[in-house]
Formats: sequence, structure tokens, C-alpha cells
Amino acid sequence: MTHIALLSQTSKLEYLGPLLQAALPAAHCSVWPDPACLDAEVAVCWNTPPGLYEQMPRLRLVHSIAAGVDNILPGSSGTGLPVCRVVDEGLTRGMVEYVMWAVLHFHRGFDLALRQQRSHRWSRPPLRPAGECRVGIMGLGALGRSVAARLLAEGYRVGGWARGAHAIDGVATHAGPTGLQDFLASTDILVNLLPLTDDTRGILGQALFSRLPQGACVVGCGRGEHLVAEDLIAALQSGHLRGAVLDVFPQEPLDAASPLWDMPQIVVTPHMATMASPAAVVRQVAENIRRLQGGQPLLNLVDAARGY
Amino acid sequence: MTHIALLSQTSKLEYLGPLLQAALPAAHCSVWPDPACLDAEVAVCWNTPPGLYEQMPRLRLVHSIAAGVDNILPGSSGTGLPVCRVVDEGLTRGMVEYVMWAVLHFHRGFDLALRQQRSHRWSRPPLRPAGECRVGIMGLGALGRSVAARLLAEGYRVGGWARGAHAIDGVATHAGPTGLQDFLASTDILVNLLPLTDDTRGILGQALFSRLPQGACVVGCGRGEHLVAEDLIAALQSGHLRGAVLDVFPQEPLDAASPLWDMPQIVVTPHMATMASPAAVVRQVAENIRRLQGGQPLLNLVDAARGY
Repeated sequence: MTHIALLSQTSKLEYLGPLLQAALPAAHCSVWPDPACLDAEVAVCWNTPPGLYEQMPRLRLVHSIAAGVDNILPGSSGTGLPVCRVVDEGLTRGMVEYVMWAVLHFHRGFDLALRQQRSHRWSRPPLRPAGECRVGIMGLGALGRSVAARLLAEGYRVGGWARGAHAIDGVATHAGPTGLQDFLASTDILVNLLPLTDDTRGILGQALFSRLPQGACVVGCGRGEHLVAEDLIAALQSGHLRGAVLDVFPQEPLDAASPLWDMPQIVVTPHMATMASPAAVVRQVAENIRRLQGGQPLLNLVDAARGY
Repeated sequence: MTHIALLSQTSKLEYLGPLLQAALPAAHCSVWPDPACLDAEVAVCWNTPPGLYEQMPRLRLVHSIAAGVDNILPGSSGTGLPVCRVVDEGLTRGMVEYVMWAVLHFHRGFDLALRQQRSHRWSRPPLRPAGECRVGIMGLGALGRSVAARLLAEGYRVGGWARGAHAIDGVATHAGPTGLQDFLASTDILVNLLPLTDDTRGILGQALFSRLPQGACVVGCGRGEHLVAEDLIAALQSGHLRGAVLDVFPQEPLDAASPLWDMPQIVVTPHMATMASPAAVVRQVAENIRRLQGGQPLLNLVDAARGY
């Protein structure tokens, strides 16, 4: 028998309870702030209330309901517990579709057409083959690699950057701080899919933007905290950058008073790029609970010290 | 030796002259309104001035510079001359990219996000898999079939309609007036790639829209004359249709006073979906001139009586 706690300070996770119990008949679920949660062996989390894991003496597994784990990781002291993410085909497909729209949006000049439409202006943007458009992907995890594969299949020139070295057929990969400058200099459309860690917080800021070529575009679908919004606005207003498509923000919903909403060069979308389906979350959580009980290796295990 | 006339009443085709002469050293080119054009054996055309072919006694071939031939066909009397179009991989790829953006735009709710952005509103659209989104393609020529193949590969449910019967793996095809109703009833996103003929002029009108499901969307990248603009505006304003992406208009540039520009449900783009590259046009015209001289079958020959 397993006791599962559904922990979130921002989302209602109750809907997962009956689904998890159907998948694991011997399990039962508690939902935070029910204090019974503190007895659970497994925590299924999204924006975990701070300091909770430390009050759960029987806890053996922390599981996200999404690919990003930044908002569920134990505090700096750590807990030594295994932390797992959810990555499934549907979640990956959603992200690939979102990035595909954003890349076509800039590559094919739909951004220019939409801006012209506001002033009833007709001017055909240049028609360039995909092979002349360089898309640079920051973050080469499951999502970044799937996006890269799809863009390659479309004929784009694809580059990639991550903290560590990666070899991906057909992708010009760069690693670490020393590889960043070459990566940025050869990127027309930058797609951010990095995990959020202390090293990547604020990475989409003035220093990075200044190393992108004049007229480059930014697609933000990692985490809101990657972006320094003022720096993006300045780079767009100076004309150094051409446009941005942003799906994630440090506070969601994005504040109605944010200047991002009214920038004509920015598309704001409501964190809609992708989401694991409840069925996929339950399937992976249930499988990892069975593996935990059977002493087998866990799926989609995160390096909690590294942060992703 | 071949004399090639470059005929257009709307576009400057001079740029093709040196390219054609480089490809066919024995040929020479005249550009309308030079009266020498009337002596030519081959006409390379875009919006041919009316009545010109009849004044060209040595004319043996009429060649378009694009996939559509409606604006270069001889008048109703006909001339009996062969008429050829240009279809190449680059032209096809451009159209596939354009339609892909438009389909993702509606399937993934980017249209809703853009409208919400104007009022600083944050509301996540439903995330549906591509397999639950039915895309219906009108026109199953080279472009329609390529678009269908690409949408199928993305996982969409794809239907097709054309005047005559077509069998395409994985596509639910419908034919002729009797097949139209079933086709429309099972289409969430309608993509028009029909040729412009007397039968298809105004086909995107009230009668057709009323047979699409509530909330359907329209992508117009055939010819402007397919669309009855007032009917589209009425169907959008009544809420029966959700949105439209339009690339072609009966008069281009679209009149700055057109009500289409300001409809929040409509994206107007400046006939930018695709274009054959000059290199592709020259390659195909030169090849067809060699075939004409050698008595071989012409490439991309149009049925001039049928109109496509």
C-alpha cells in the first residue's frame, strides 16, 4: 500500500487522485493542505509549498507532473530523495508544434504581415528557403532534441547549445560558456528550452541579446525566469532584435500591466505550448511507484543537485 | 533559334530575359509592350494583356511563371496552343510552410492568443492532439497533394475535395458537387488550393460556409476570386466561422479601404505564400522549349479548355 500526496500551492491537483487510485488500486491519495499528506511515501507536485518535504519522514519519491522540475526541487539543503519528471510523446509533440509555429512565424514573415495589417500596408516579405534560416536551440534535453529533429526535417539550419557537450546528427552543437558566443553569432531564431537553474536564471538578457545578429528573433518556452523582460524590450526598441514569441513568464497569468502585452514585436501566449495529459502523468507516476517498490531504476530521473 | 516574348500587364518580367538567354544561347527575348513580341514563338506570361495571343501568328507555346494559369489562358475562343505551368519543389515547399503555419495557428489557438493579447487577457486554449483536428483541402493538384501529405505526417485528420475523383493514401477524398456537403461537414480547417475557373469563382461564399461546422476556419491561398468577401465577413461576424487566413485577393495589393484589414478574426498576408524562383521558372521554360523543338511531351501541360 502506497500513500501519495498531491502537493501544490498554485494548482488544483485533486483530479489526479481518482486516476492514480484506478492505476494503483492499493494506493490512496491525500491532497495538500490536508495534514495527512505529511505521512505520504510519494509526493506528486507542481509548485510545492516550501519546506514541506522536510516534514514528510516517510517520503521516498518526489514526482513532477511536467518536464520542468525547478518548482518542485527540494531547497538548497536537499533531501537526497529521487526526483522524477514527466516526458511523454504528447508533451513533446505539443512543444514541437508550438516552436514550429513560432519559427515559421519569423522565417516566413508572418510577424511582418501582422504588423503591416494594422496599418493596411501591403509589402511582400522576402521568400527565403528554410536552409538559409538558422535556428538555435538552447537546451538539448528531450524537448530540445525533438524540436531540433523536426526543424532539421523541415530543412532549417539547426544549431544547439547546452551546458554540457552533446552530439546530434546534423546539428551544430556548442557547449558551456565558451561555446555560447559562436552559437549566438550563428542564430537567426533563438529557441529557449533550457531548464531553470541558478546558472540559467536571467540568461536571456542584454549580454546574450547583444551577441545575436541584428534582426534576430527569440522564442521563449523554457521558464519565465530565464528572461530579463526590460532587456528584451530595450533590444526590440533599439531595432537590434526583430521580434519575440513568449509563452512563459515569472508570474502567470502575466500581469495585465506588463509592458510586454503592448509591444508590437512580441506575441504573448498563455503558457499554452504543451502539457502532459493526465493519463500520461498517471501512467508515469504509477510506473515509477512500481519501480520504486520493485527496486528497479526510475524513469526520467532528475539530477537534483544539478537542477535538471 | 527561338524568339521568346515576356508578356505581362502587371509585372516586370525583364529580369527573366538574361536568365533565359543564358539557359538557351540560341534564343532571344522581347519584353511587352515592344511590338517585336508579336513575332515570338514562345510566350512567357503573367497577367497577359487580353487579345495578344491572337496577334502572334508564330506562337507555339504559352508558358506561365507560376502554378496558376487563370491569368494567362487564351480567351473563350481558345487558340489550341499548349499552355504550361511551373511547379517546382521550392514553390511547393513554400505553400506547405504557409499552410502549416495557418493550420497550427488555428489548431493550437494562436489566433485566440493574439486576440486576447490586445486586451491583456490570459486564457489557455484547449490543447487538442492533431488527430482531433480535421483539415479539409479543396483542390488536389500538385500543391494540394503535397499539403495533404505534410499534414498527414503531422498527425492531422485530412480530407480532400476536387472536381474529379482522387485516391490519396490516408486522405478521405470527396468529388464533385455531390461530394461537397460531406467534405464540408467533416472539416474544421478549410484550405483552398483550387484552380480559378468559371466553376470555382465565388465558391467560398455563404452556401459553402453554412455547411462548415460551427467554429470552422478558412485558409485562402488559391485565388482571390474564389472568395466572396462580404459572405466571409458575415459568417465571421455571426460567429458561425471562427477565423480566416487570407493570402490572395481579387485586386492586389488589397485596397487600403477593404474591410478585411480590420476584422479581428482575419489575418491578411500580402500574397506571400509561395513563388517559383527565377531559376526554377527558367529551368522549366527552357526544358519545355527543348521538348517543343524535339517533339517530346511537354512538362506540366495544362488542359486549357478545363482551365487547369
